Amino acid sequence: MLKAKVNVTLKKSILDPQGSAVEKALRSMDYPVHSVRIGKFMEVTLNEESKEKATQVMDEICRKLLSNPVIEDYTFELED
Amino acid sequence: MLKAKVNVTLKKSILDPQGSAVEKALRSMDYPVHSVRIGKFMEVTLNEESKEKATQVMDEICRKLLSNPVIEDYTFELED
Repeated sequence: MLKAKVNVTLKKSILDPQGSAVEKALRSMDYPVHSVRIGKFMEVTLNEESKEKATQVMDEICRKLLSNPVIEDYTFELED
Repeated sequence: MLKAKVNVTLKKSILDPQGSAVEKALRSMDYPVHSVRIGKFMEVTLNEESKEKATQVMDEICRKLLSNPVIEDYTFELED
């Protein structure tokens, strides 16, 4: 089995109200915060042994289902 | 400035209904998925130059504010 760690984040050009709220809260508590962006983190374990095949499957799953390509970017890394 | 990439996930012992829903959906589309766990991903940029100080600040922020230690675990890594 292979495990993929996926990060889905809003594109830089998209306003992140959740991130801004957390940013203001942290600053109000005097933490040295410049900016905060919030996204989704997913761990997907695949019944797959080949890294090449797993990469193809994960690319498709991320593009079609786990992210909205219009407003989000995704990255993933495979672990043994 | 230093950037911290934070992952907040539910503890293994905690049921993840969101992850189970995505897991079932992906399996129903014949993807070779064994399991899915969903959490939060945050990018926190700090007005801090020292990695040591940034690590301390991030530990405190994660423990006190960005995660619920009763049901969640957190990990973070610092980038230049």
